[in-house]
Amino acid sequence: MPTIPYKRHIFICTNRRDPGNPKGSCANRGSEEIATAFKKELAEHGLRGEMRANASGCLDQCAHGPTVVVYPEGVWYCVKDAAEVKEIVEEHLVNDRPVERLRLQPGEAEKKTEQKS
Amino acid sequence: MPTIPYKRHIFICTNRRDPGNPKGSCANRGSEEIATAFKKELAEHGLRGEMRANASGCLDQCAHGPTVVVYPEGVWYCVKDAAEVKEIVEEHLVNDRPVERLRLQPGEAEKKTEQKS
Repeated sequence: MPTIPYKRHIFICTNRRDPGNPKGSCANRGSEEIATAFKKELAEHGLRGEMRANASGCLDQCAHGPTVVVYPEGVWYCVKDAAEVKEIVEEHLVNDRPVERLRLQPGEAEKKTEQKS
Repeated sequence: MPTIPYKRHIFICTNRRDPGNPKGSCANRGSEEIATAFKKELAEHGLRGEMRANASGCLDQCAHGPTVVVYPEGVWYCVKDAAEVKEIVEEHLVNDRPVERLRLQPGEAEKKTEQKS
């Protein structure tokens, strides 16, 4: 039985919608691989037990996925690949420096939507 | 697009294992109904948007489920039915008073296991 609360708890949206759904979904953008990459990086950095990576249902940031949120600090990310996962684990989870470049914030979220359209 | 971060973000383990699995699972103990009850109570209390209830994968507290964790404060609960959901929403989420009786903590977790065996 792991010790709770965790020092950090990472949730990765793995919600999957029909490929034709205009909302899109994190799973259709590779979030299951992102979740697996987080689990692998936590294990390789000896963080299992004190931190946990969890799949989650829809985090309601569908336009910007794959969406990740790190608690207790409540830092939200848009994470595209395993290299970005590694960067978040090493910079944020190990060294306590959130990766500003990858953060998803209300203002940035709108900007990213405009850039995509 | 809802405002992030949420004031409170509630994760409910809806992991389902084969009924014969000795580990048990939260879904086999009614956690999907617990998740639905949280969504309904948040809506009825006008909290949608500022708070969110999310299904999650296994939270690794399988012996004590249905398991729920509330962030950012990191308060863990074992929640058995819709009446307990309503109590948590009204006491903890609305009035900022965690429901101590329902909390899951390392020491209590061991105790609950012993009581069940």
